[in-house]
Amino acid sequence: MNDRMTTASRPAGSVLALCGGVGGAKLALGLYRTLASGKLTIAVNTGDDFTHLGFRISPDIDTTVYTLAGIADPARGWGRNHETWNFMAAIEELGGETWFRLGDRDLAMHVERTASLKAGKTLTEFVAHAARKFGIDAQILPMTDNNLRTIVVTDEGELPFQRYFVERRCEPVVRALRFGGATQARPAQELLEALSDASLRAVVICPSNPYLSIDPLLAMPELRRAISRTNAPVIAVSPIIGGQAVKGPTAKIMTELGIPVTIQSIAAHYRGLIDGLVIDTSDAQEEANLDIPVLSTKILMQDQPDRERLAEEVMAFAGECKLRNVDSRLRRRAGGKPA
Amino acid sequence: MNDRMTTASRPAGSVLALCGGVGGAKLALGLYRTLASGKLTIAVNTGDDFTHLGFRISPDIDTTVYTLAGIADPARGWGRNHETWNFMAAIEELGGETWFRLGDRDLAMHVERTASLKAGKTLTEFVAHAARKFGIDAQILPMTDNNLRTIVVTDEGELPFQRYFVERRCEPVVRALRFGGATQARPAQELLEALSDASLRAVVICPSNPYLSIDPLLAMPELRRAISRTNAPVIAVSPIIGGQAVKGPTAKIMTELGIPVTIQSIAAHYRGLIDGLVIDTSDAQEEANLDIPVLSTKILMQDQPDRERLAEEVMAFAGECKLRNVDSRLRRRAGGKPA
Repeated sequence: MNDRMTTASRPAGSVLALCGGVGGAKLALGLYRTLASGKLTIAVNTGDDFTHLGFRISPDIDTTVYTLAGIADPARGWGRNHETWNFMAAIEELGGETWFRLGDRDLAMHVERTASLKAGKTLTEFVAHAARKFGIDAQILPMTDNNLRTIVVTDEGELPFQRYFVERRCEPVVRALRFGGATQARPAQELLEALSDASLRAVVICPSNPYLSIDPLLAMPELRRAISRTNAPVIAVSPIIGGQAVKGPTAKIMTELGIPVTIQSIAAHYRGLIDGLVIDTSDAQEEANLDIPVLSTKILMQDQPDRERLAEEVMAFAGECKLRNVDSRLRRRAGGKPA
Repeated sequence: MNDRMTTASRPAGSVLALCGGVGGAKLALGLYRTLASGKLTIAVNTGDDFTHLGFRISPDIDTTVYTLAGIADPARGWGRNHETWNFMAAIEELGGETWFRLGDRDLAMHVERTASLKAGKTLTEFVAHAARKFGIDAQILPMTDNNLRTIVVTDEGELPFQRYFVERRCEPVVRALRFGGATQARPAQELLEALSDASLRAVVICPSNPYLSIDPLLAMPELRRAISRTNAPVIAVSPIIGGQAVKGPTAKIMTELGIPVTIQSIAAHYRGLIDGLVIDTSDAQEEANLDIPVLSTKILMQDQPDRERLAEEVMAFAGECKLRNVDSRLRRRAGGKPA
């Protein structure tokens, strides 16, 4: 499939990917490498953003930028490759906070972002600048330039996302998730424009954690509405394989929230919003239980060929869904409310 | 001399050193290693401080802290040893400012200082904290917690100190030096206390650049007055050897300001403030032209034994000056005005 799709015969039109952390970034990279130049827009979760040691930190944005730039650390799952940690060691000498680790190279991104925001630029402007500097030929958009913060309601009380995720290593039991500021936050203007672009080929919800990484985007009423109204097919890729999360705390959180760790749960979560769901072949026996078009394929992305193959299969599936999606479009428009 | 002075028979009483950059820090280290534990206070120039990439940077303070902690880079003359530069390389990738180089380890000091000041602590409090963390058993004091900024008036206009010193490598011709905020700035309270302490053995003006590094301290009327009134002998160590500056732009600046590069100029600069001047043996023939007690010795500090020997000689000379300083004290009190 690679050979066929990487020719010059690619269809025109742009693609919008909704993306959170590392799993989402892998598929975004697959799309980036297989779509024609300049055709990919990626809207990234900023609900995990926070201020630490005086720096404005945007973990999911940086994961996306580093991944597309080809400088993400493949083993760690965050930060840059060939990283060093001398800053962190010196912070420790001075008795500073070390629970959130910042690499020496990575730090430059936080310093420049903080200075840029302080100088009155938007996060969107800074990310566009950084992407350009890293030679990235895709539009990476923070989902919003406003404050929208993911708060984890746990059995120990409310925790800002990074305190829960990094400092507490997802140990507290999750009771609920809140997205502070979501109803006031405006989606990035460029994101709304991408969704209303007549040439939009597909919206791809990447296999990020639906509750932690995608819900912050969907918590903005204006964005949810724009997605439900887009003419392009909306395809989600499941983050669940064979009843387990590929990575991260998705399964733990689902269990704690009382949600079965199944692809049916993912389908139900995105019901009314998506035209098709991509699941793993190991879950193919569940396909009959889903009331939505399904592509069953290998969704675990272990290497670059995996990412590109999945990206191309997702785009082909989106094309099929578009051909038969008058029904689903109607369904989406009728039911495009929070699932 | 080392053997004799490093015994337990050291005289009691504390010593106050006035210090700027690297040359001053070397003598401060010599004093630190030869004085009894806890007996050294160092008041450091903060006129070179500035804000860069969002960080509050205190170059002379850091040089002093790193030198006393034994982690200063010996070759470079600033920053830490075993330093790496990956942050800087990444700043360059992002198109950020790289004219002022910040090492990965050094950066922690700026980040922690900036956060500390933002949290409402004083610079004095932060420096005490950092010194403690590095195990330094001396009191390192910023000369003031107020804004006092060295401005270099050049043939190209006024330049903030670091722009002149680092970015322009001292190339513009100096017409004058200004110390913005000096008349409003209050010296650190601990510094005034050190000067009025009855047990003060000596005030040592380290061989820092008198115009760039020591004058910012003396530009504070309250500090100049307190120095001229102290009961302890005030001893300056010449930064000029054989008509040349040991290091840095001292000679160039003196020439541009129309001041002969001689020890007479140094003596004249500190006239009314000091009780004795330490000069190099290569300048000994000029001793007769000085109307002040002089110690002529080797003042170039090339290694640690040099620093400790000079420190001990300075202290012995201060003791001699104290014995015969009723005259000079009177002279100082009469003439303690800006030279």
